[in-house]
This record gives sequence, structure tokens and C-alpha cells, in this order.
Amino acid sequence: MKRTLGELAAVIQGELRGPADLVIEGIAAIDRATPRDITFISRGKYARLAGTSQAGAFIVSLEQADLDRPRIIVPNPYLAYAQVAMLFAPPRRRWPGISNLACLGRDVELGREVSIAPLVFLGDRVRLGDRATLMPGCVLGDDVHLGADTLLHPNVTVLERCILGERVIVNSGTVIGSDGFGFVPGKDGHFKIPQLGIVVVEDDVEIGANCTIDRAALGETRIGRGTKIDNLVQVAHNVSIGENSFLVAQVGVSGSVKIGKNVAIGGQAGLVGHIEVGDGAQITAQAGVTNSIKAGQVVGGTPALPYREAIRVHTVLARLPEIYQRLKQAEQKIIELENRLEKEPSS
Amino acid sequence: MKRTLGELAAVIQGELRGPADLVIEGIAAIDRATPRDITFISRGKYARLAGTSQAGAFIVSLEQADLDRPRIIVPNPYLAYAQVAMLFAPPRRRWPGISNLACLGRDVELGREVSIAPLVFLGDRVRLGDRATLMPGCVLGDDVHLGADTLLHPNVTVLERCILGERVIVNSGTVIGSDGFGFVPGKDGHFKIPQLGIVVVEDDVEIGANCTIDRAALGETRIGRGTKIDNLVQVAHNVSIGENSFLVAQVGVSGSVKIGKNVAIGGQAGLVGHIEVGDGAQITAQAGVTNSIKAGQVVGGTPALPYREAIRVHTVLARLPEIYQRLKQAEQKIIELENRLEKEPSS
Amino acid sequence: MKRTLGELAAVIQGELRGPADLVIEGIAAIDRATPRDITFISRGKYARLAGTSQAGAFIVSLEQADLDRPRIIVPNPYLAYAQVAMLFAPPRRRWPGISNLACLGRDVELGREVSIAPLVFLGDRVRLGDRATLMPGCVLGDDVHLGADTLLHPNVTVLERCILGERVIVNSGTVIGSDGFGFVPGKDGHFKIPQLGIVVVEDDVEIGANCTIDRAALGETRIGRGTKIDNLVQVAHNVSIGENSFLVAQVGVSGSVKIGKNVAIGGQAGLVGHIEVGDGAQITAQAGVTNSIKAGQVVGGTPALPYREAIRVHTVLARLPEIYQRLKQAEQKIIELENRLEKEPSS
Repeated sequence: MKRTLGELAAVIQGELRGPADLVIEGIAAIDRATPRDITFISRGKYARLAGTSQAGAFIVSLEQADLDRPRIIVPNPYLAYAQVAMLFAPPRRRWPGISNLACLGRDVELGREVSIAPLVFLGDRVRLGDRATLMPGCVLGDDVHLGADTLLHPNVTVLERCILGERVIVNSGTVIGSDGFGFVPGKDGHFKIPQLGIVVVEDDVEIGANCTIDRAALGETRIGRGTKIDNLVQVAHNVSIGENSFLVAQVGVSGSVKIGKNVAIGGQAGLVGHIEVGDGAQITAQAGVTNSIKAGQVVGGTPALPYREAIRVHTVLARLPEIYQRLKQAEQKIIELENRLEKEPSS
Repeated sequence: MKRTLGELAAVIQGELRGPADLVIEGIAAIDRATPRDITFISRGKYARLAGTSQAGAFIVSLEQADLDRPRIIVPNPYLAYAQVAMLFAPPRRRWPGISNLACLGRDVELGREVSIAPLVFLGDRVRLGDRATLMPGCVLGDDVHLGADTLLHPNVTVLERCILGERVIVNSGTVIGSDGFGFVPGKDGHFKIPQLGIVVVEDDVEIGANCTIDRAALGETRIGRGTKIDNLVQVAHNVSIGENSFLVAQVGVSGSVKIGKNVAIGGQAGLVGHIEVGDGAQITAQAGVTNSIKAGQVVGGTPALPYREAIRVHTVLARLPEIYQRLKQAEQKIIELENRLEKEPSS
Repeated sequence: MKRTLGELAAVIQGELRGPADLVIEGIAAIDRATPRDITFISRGKYARLAGTSQAGAFIVSLEQADLDRPRIIVPNPYLAYAQVAMLFAPPRRRWPGISNLACLGRDVELGREVSIAPLVFLGDRVRLGDRATLMPGCVLGDDVHLGADTLLHPNVTVLERCILGERVIVNSGTVIGSDGFGFVPGKDGHFKIPQLGIVVVEDDVEIGANCTIDRAALGETRIGRGTKIDNLVQVAHNVSIGENSFLVAQVGVSGSVKIGKNVAIGGQAGLVGHIEVGDGAQITAQAGVTNSIKAGQVVGGTPALPYREAIRVHTVLARLPEIYQRLKQAEQKIIELENRLEKEPSS
């Protein structure tokens, strides 16, 4: 695919400085771009690479506006890069129509232009919105609903009665609607609590690869509109997550946790059950969150503390052996002082 | 499905206080129940919601026996809820018989009323007990044995020669019998140690979604009867787990660990290899266990300490920056005291 | 399969002490071996079990050369065990040729003696090297290339354009080429950054079960020759890993991290994005690595410190409550000393 620099400037609504008819064939990182590629400078630390870059053109911010190369100036080069990348992205191949190697249950309702690849299984009464795409190996249980333009990558499992909205993307290997982990413990064995609820995934959610989103025991587990979930994340039963939150890889969210909107949770963090995380809160990577977090709060560490405290603790922590040595010395000096005072006549 | 309150009281062996002929159509959480639902109060903190709940009837404990609503009184409302939920659970749909879109190897032995869905693969000499259920996308290697009433959710993989007992439930995406992580390190590459053993999963085990249970290098990896494993759990080669233990999501158990019975391991905890965890021990979430744990011991933290110590450490940890400041002040005062004594004539 | 002790000694190039014609039918752990099995003593702690072992023969090191049993003496018994286990490993059954229940795209190029099991999906222009093996349920996107002798266990997903070298082994449920986690955050939703790059897996790599290896945003994510990755490991977009490194189960590597060769990363450790880990570095289990690590360095803890420091910190950490008590006592004594000096006439 070929575009001119002028066309790209129009798409990203930037200010063009350079030849509008320069032909661009792709986008690449600054150290790998060829003269046929456009690249971008999103952070100052990459600016020093501009001089040696082979790129044919650059997307830059106002701070880099003077770069002596063909360029497009925008307020947010990172966003402009994403928009240009979208232009150059190879079209995703979809199976044309419904493969006769797919296996469809009874009374399915299919929207227009759905794509059902070979080796897909659909249970009874599954409903697919327009242009929904099911890649090979996907399994949908009975009564699953998928909204328009939703995409399931290969080998995704969505179990019975779960509901996914529009423009949802689910990466490979992810399981939506597995049984929540609920048992009544007993001396001679644990009694399974039937997991009767469902999972609801709202519009514009993206879920990474090999995640697990458990159905509710009763009611629903809910992932709010626009929330993005990375790979290998565990969302337990009855969790609710608000809009536009981020969960980075390998996060674990225990049962019945309520997470607000615009929350960011770093990789490998874990949350105990039944707590609330307010809107806009941030949890750093590997944190262990044992109590509810207020809106806007930033926490880190295990058990999680307000971030500034956690940083102070971690900074001092490395000096703990030294602190212990100094305490022992102080104790010794106190004994010496006491001994000296003992020897002196009390007044 | 409809039941009368009297029927439900009989099933859960509770004391009925209310109209025996009241019709109940489902079970729901206390804040979502409608007049056609029964709900339950398992903890005091939900009792205050009873007044505003729309529920038609309640399952309560002796402490809530005076609740002025149709109710069934039982010793353990949580267990009674699970029993009633089992009554109202929609019957799990099984493929009737053996799909002709399944792929069966040679010399398979199938019990009565097995259910083999489309897109299932069975290797040679696979043996299935009566009423075993294989959902779409499951792959069983050669010589796999499954006991009666065992259920594999969609896209489960059980590799060659592994053995699952009766009434085992395996959630979607889980892999049983993957190769253990064994290599002889070398300067010019690492020599793979063939993993010749198997996995044995005893009766009544439930395994969550996207777990990995590695086969033994030699001998067997074993999950004891009644043990329950949550999602995304790693069980390495040659691990043995006793009866009725719990492993919460994202736990990692290293090679050759021996875990006793009735052990509980919290989410994201990790155990180093070749240690033993005694019967009834408990390991808190995110703990890093580096040494064997005695029966009944409770440990937490990284590296794991006895729980009470771990709590004390964590409590003081938040004050570490303050401790450091106070130490510096004490040191300063000691110097001042020393200076004052220096100036005084020694007696 | 039967071998004589003499044959085994020849294979592992060891010194035979015992009857060369002794027939050996298998290899087993020292406490489970029967008189028809050979076993091995790789560590001193197993030597004491030799007396009661039923094994017919032993592989031992020079230190155990005097063991009074049929034996083969080698410099590295662990390596010799792996070599003998390779001999006794049951041949892996491969589907003979190309199943007519597999689904192949257009213009695929297949090497000699490839094995494509039922229920496998290959996109267009997929290229398979000689003797490549695809087990049931594998899905390969368009333009995927697999080298000779590469083995994908059941239910593996390799997405479009990714490249795997020769003799690569991928365990079940693993996803290679899922979209990297890249979004431009916005108030009203996050803009997806198209992930245009690929994953390159070099020769002789082994990847565990249910791992996720994300494709690069631009360019490539690369796993170096001979590197071994355990189960449930997350490798984010644009990561590069050198040759012969080890990543133990549940490790998480954030975006654009550069890991050198011969690096070892313990289970559940996490690395923040954009850092470098030098050749031969070691990261202990559950570490949280927030800064680059030099070649040969060993680090542990969260945030990660040089290992010896981390051990010292952890050792003192358990005494932190005691330290706090002692500090309070020291403060009290200082006050008492100050009071006594106050009362004395200053000289």
C-alpha cells in the first residue's frame, strides 16, 4: 500500500513540512525505518536517533518541529503513529461467510456478513451481530450473544449464556464464562456451589490471550465498556470493572471485587476479594491489595500502601541491614554511657 | 422450574417458617432477588439488607431466625444455598452420544452414555467411563483414561497416558500432561530430559480454566481426591497434592513439591521445588514459600514466615521510614550525651 | 524395549562395573525402580537410598564409584540419565501424513514427511519444514512458517506471519503472535495501536503450555536459539531474548525488554518495560525487576536488589518487629540518661 506524505498529514490532521507527494509505503521504528517508511518520535529519548535514521519522513511533536527532515507536526505523535499504523495494517483476513466445516447448533441467529471459520462450534440459540468474526477453533456455548463487529481470535471459548457487546476483541486461548471457584468446605470433601450467573463484556473491550473470566455464582461478572485487559489475567466470579480501565498481564482479581472506571492495574498485581477500587485509582505492578482503594489513589507494595509511602518504605528497605547494625551500635553506646554515669557519684 | 418453599425446606432439611405452598422460581443475591426468588443470609453483614430485599423467601441461620419474612432456618445457610442452587441450575447440555464430527482413534473403549461433542479428538486406546462428557475442542492423547461422570469443558487438552478419575471437572483451556520443564544445562545448549511419566487426577477433583499440570519426568504427578484448583495454576512435574486441598488462582507449584491434604494456598503464591507442605497447612496469597511447612502451620509473606510474624513484620514495615528517622535522632542524641560527658571531669 | 547394561554404558560413554549382558527394560526414580530398571544418583542426598533401592543397575558419579551394585560411572549422571531416558522414551505418535479432517489454506508449502493431524487449521501460504508435526486443534494463521522437525502439541495457536525455526517444541495451549497490549489512552476511550510486527522463534527453543508471546507493534518479538520457556509465561511485544536462556513458569516480561543469552529468570518474577538484562544474569523467583541488570549479575526481591543484599535484607526483615522494640527501648534509655544529666550540675 502506498500513501503520499500529504495524504498522511491530512489523516492525522498535522502540519506538513516537506514534499506532499513523497511516497510512503509503511511505518517502522526509528532505528529500522527505510527511506520508504515514515517513523515517529514520541519521546525525547528517541529524538537523538533522528539524525542517523534512514526514515523517509517523521511524525513529530511541536518540540521537534525544527527537525531538518520531511515531517508532520502533531500535538500527540503517539496517537498519530497509531492512526498511520491503522492505515498500513494489513487487512485482517476473515473467512468468507460460514464454513461448512463449522458446526452450528439449532436456532442460531446470524447477522449480516458474519464470518465463521472452519472448526468453530456454536451451541443452540447463539446470536451473532453483523460482521462478527469467529476464527478457527472457537467454541461458543448455548445462548451466547456477540455484538456487531466483535472478533474472536482462534481457540477462544465463550461458555453458555455469556454476552459480549460490539467491537469486542478477544485474543486466542481466552476463556469467558468458566465456573467461578466456589465451594462450601467440608471435612469429607467440598460441596460445589453451582455457578449460575454469566459474564457480560461491554462494547469496545479488548481481552488478551489465555485470560480467564469466570461467570458469576449468581448474577453477573461485568467488564465495562472500553476496558482493556492484557494476557493471562484472572477475573474471578462476580467481579465488576468499570469503563476504560487497564489490567496489565497476569493480574489476578478475586471474587466480588468492584473496580471503577479509568483504573490502571500493573502487571502481576493481586486483589483480595470483596474490596472496592475507586475511579481513576492506580495499582502498581506486583502489588498485593488487601483493602479498598479510594478514587484517584495510587498504591503499591505488598500489602499495598499509598504509593509515596511504598516508595519510601522500599528505599529504606535496602538499608535495613545497615539500620540494624547502627541500632546495635547505638545500644552499645547507651550501655557505655550508662556505665560511665553509674561510676559517677549521683548528685 | 418451580418449587414450593416446603419442597425446598425438605431438600435442605431446614425448619420452615412461612407458607409451605409459596412458589419459588429461582435463587438470587439478596439485593437482586425478586418476589419469585429465594435468597440467603450467610453472613451478618448481609442481614441489614433483608429489610429492603424483594426476595420472596430467605434461607437463614439460627441467629436470623426471627426475621419477619418467609424463611427456612438451617445451621449452615451457605451450604443450603449451594444445595438450592444445584436444584435451580439449568441442566448442562451434553452432546447426545458421539458426534460424527468427532475424531476417534483405534481401540477406544467407551462406557455407557458417554457424550462426545463435535471437533473432539481421541487418540488410540482412550478409555472413557460411563457418562463421561467431552465438550467441543477437547483433545485426548493416546491411552488417556477418564473415569465415570468426568466432564471436560471445551478446548481442554489431556496428553498421552494421563489418568483422570470419576466425577472430575476440568475447565476450558486447561492442559494436563504437558512436558515438565527439565533440561540438563550445557554451554552450547540445554539437553532436554524426556518426560516419561504421567499425571494422575483422582476422583472429585475440579481444575479451573487455563491451568497447566505437567507430567512427571519419571513416575507421576498426582492431584488427590477432592482437591479444587482455581484458574491459571501451574503444577510442575512430580508434584503430589493430597486430598481436599485448595489452590487459588495463579498459584505456582515447583517440581517435586509434596502437598498434604486439606491444605489451602492463596492466589499467586509460589512454592520452590522439593519442599513439603504438611496436612492442613495454609499459605496466604502472594507468599513465596522457600522451606517446608509443618502440618497445620499458617505462613505468609516473601520469604514466607509464620503468619503472625509475617503480619507483625508487615505492620512495622509501613513505619520503616519513621524508624530510620528515629534511629538517626537517637544516634544524634547519643553523640550529644557523649559530648556532654566528655566535657565533664571524670570522677 | 530392552537394552543390555553394556549397550547403555556405550551410549552414555561411561565405565561399566557389572554384567554387560544384564537386561534393562526401563529407567525409574531410585525409590520406584524395579530389578528390570536402571536408576541414577545425581545428588548426594539420594545416595543413601541406594541400599534399599530395588533397581537392577545404577548410573553414578565418581564419588559413588564404589557402590556395590551393577553400575555405570560417568562424570555427569544427570546428563546420562537424560540420555538413557531418551532411549526408553516411547516414540511420539505422529499422524501419518495429512489428515483429511485437517483444513488447509491456499498455496501452503509442505516439506517432506510432515504430520498434520485432524482438526488442524492452516491459513494461506503457510510453509512447513520437513517432518514438522501439528497435533490436533492447532491453528496457524496466514503466512506462518515452521522449520524442520518442529512440533506443536495440541491446541497451539500461531498467528499470521510468525516464524518458528527448526526443532522448536511448543506445548499445548500456547499462543504465539497475539496482539501486543498497546493503546493510546484517551478520556473517552483508548485508541488501539495496531500490532503490525511478528514473533520470531529461533531454532531449538522450547515453550511451555498456555504461554503468551505477543507480536511486536512494529518489527519483531524474538526468542533466541535454544532458550527454554516454562508454562504460563508472558512475553510482551517487542521483547528480545538471547540464546540459551531459561524463563521459569509464570514469569512476566514487559514490552521492549532486551534479555541477553544464558539468562535465568525464576518463577513468577516480573520485569518492567524497556530495561536490559545482560548475558548470564540471574533473577530469582518472584523478583520485581525495575532497572536494567548487568551481565552476570544476580538479583532478587521486590524491587530487585543484588542477591546478597536481598538475602541480607530478607534476613533482617523477619527481625523488624524486634528492631522496632529495641529502638523504642533505646529511645527510652536516652531520655533517662538525659534526665540524669539534667539533674547533675553541669561542670
